[in-house]
Amino acid sequence: MVDLTLVGIGTGNPDHITGEGRKALRSADLILIPRKGAAKADLADLRRHVCAQVLGQTAPRIVEFNLPVRDAGGDYRQGVEAWHDAIAHVWAETISGAGAPRKVALLIWGDPSLYDSSLRIARRLSPVPRLRVVPGITAIQALCAAHCIPLNAIGAPVVITTGRRLRDEGWPEGADTAVVMLDGDCAFRTLPPEGIKIWWGAYLGMAEEILFSGPLAQTGPRILEARAAARARHGWIMDIYLLRRQEG
Amino acid sequence: MVDLTLVGIGTGNPDHITGEGRKALRSADLILIPRKGAAKADLADLRRHVCAQVLGQTAPRIVEFNLPVRDAGGDYRQGVEAWHDAIAHVWAETISGAGAPRKVALLIWGDPSLYDSSLRIARRLSPVPRLRVVPGITAIQALCAAHCIPLNAIGAPVVITTGRRLRDEGWPEGADTAVVMLDGDCAFRTLPPEGIKIWWGAYLGMAEEILFSGPLAQTGPRILEARAAARARHGWIMDIYLLRRQEG
Ligand SMILES: C[S@@+](CC[C@H](N)C(=O)[O-])C[C@H]1O[C@@H](n2cnc3c(N)ncnc32)[C@H](O)[C@@H]1O
Ligand SMILES: C[S@@+](CC[C@H](N)C(=O)[O-])C[C@H]1O[C@@H](n2cnc3c(N)ncnc32)[C@H](O)[C@@H]1O
Repeated sequence: MVDLTLVGIGTGNPDHITGEGRKALRSADLILIPRKGAAKADLADLRRHVCAQVLGQTAPRIVEFNLPVRDAGGDYRQGVEAWHDAIAHVWAETISGAGAPRKVALLIWGDPSLYDSSLRIARRLSPVPRLRVVPGITAIQALCAAHCIPLNAIGAPVVITTGRRLRDEGWPEGADTAVVMLDGDCAFRTLPPEGIKIWWGAYLGMAEEILFSGPLAQTGPRILEARAAARARHGWIMDIYLLRRQEG
Repeated sequence: MVDLTLVGIGTGNPDHITGEGRKALRSADLILIPRKGAAKADLADLRRHVCAQVLGQTAPRIVEFNLPVRDAGGDYRQGVEAWHDAIAHVWAETISGAGAPRKVALLIWGDPSLYDSSLRIARRLSPVPRLRVVPGITAIQALCAAHCIPLNAIGAPVVITTGRRLRDEGWPEGADTAVVMLDGDCAFRTLPPEGIKIWWGAYLGMAEEILFSGPLAQTGPRILEARAAARARHGWIMDIYLLRRQEG
């Protein structure tokens, strides 16, 4: 049976990695790095960079594999299920192709618990590996740190949600602070902006980092413009934002 | 003007500290460690331990100060305001008493953005210091990692809230996953337990770590008992839990 460690590597800054993450990578027999195709080359590069920096003299074997592409047509849930099966299959093949090592580590963007499917995929392997999770800095923390802001108002709740939900359901019930991730389309545009402030960040922790903050009414349009320009320039973008409305 | 860096040190495991955190501590002229009184001695000890482990040959000055106690009587908000003022005052005195160093670092439990007032307190210093935040692993991440569970269901939102809110307002609107922090009194008891699962953790990342998970109806009472026993044995406790209900 394989020991599989999901190592959160943080969100762009190789110095996000924790002492625990360093040790987990150094003591692995095999490290798996997903390749996501040319458009996201930067992320595989960053993973390689983290490995180079962390591993030093120790030399676990590093193997890259091509991440299967999700079938975007048809039923969403079924598409995700099939995709997770396909990824589990590639992991299993890559591991056995590498001579069935005992300790395998996977580099996970940010923290393995936040909008990441690796844990669910790992449970599809058979036999199910002995799992371990090493937490890593999330994009939420990188956003708050970059803006020097607290996530929550004093004693108040926070909702973490997706661009799709914000667009379909409007301001999330139950909290005056919302963090929005996985938003390919600036869903904040769909909100009436009065009384809302936004803190936005793209490429957090990386050389390309961009930050904007201010009242949504004025700042929203500036973000739309800057986002489109950055995306055209780099060929890809990853962004996240925090919205805070006056206590309702 | 002082450069003040709030360094998230994670939540119990000294290996939670990131590369960025190590560098920030090593390059500081002065490191401030709060003392919270005998009952929480373990946390000051852990901070000392992190410093000893990280600093190595470099030798920033480390100064401990007594954290003022919050006046629990009277209006809650006014009490917090006065308390923050008192802490800012002690910081300012401690910094100037240490010969007005240029680069000051504060060790923050977990991540500086999550249920922590250091950023708000720092903004009360005059002149306001040049602020920098170094993210750290939160108790939420330590909880999910320890249980090997994802924070969110696929594409679904999550609410982060407090024990007080859960008790006063019931299940938080708008999400089927809730993380509850700052709960001195097991507010999960106040929920009708049907259809809810709980993942609970105390002393996460520490030698004393305790984990329980399962259906709330059966697991809740076991947690109550284990929590009371652990608290009596150690003299203090810090715990957090994640609740997930069947999609509603
Ligand atoms: C599939 S989720 C993975 C999140 C990751 N596990 C974490 O802990 O942050 C990807 C989303 O995270 C956010 N994100 C991740 N890294 C980011 C970065 N460096 N800058 C801005 N947003 C980022 C974006 O909202 C993106 O759509
Ligand atoms: C004042 S808040 C600070 C949170 C911290 N800034 C963070 O990022 O996790 C303290 C609360 O965090 C949670 N917590 C912090 N450390 C913990 C640990 N090691 N084990 C369990 N809960 C912890 C508890 O819910 C506690 O009431």
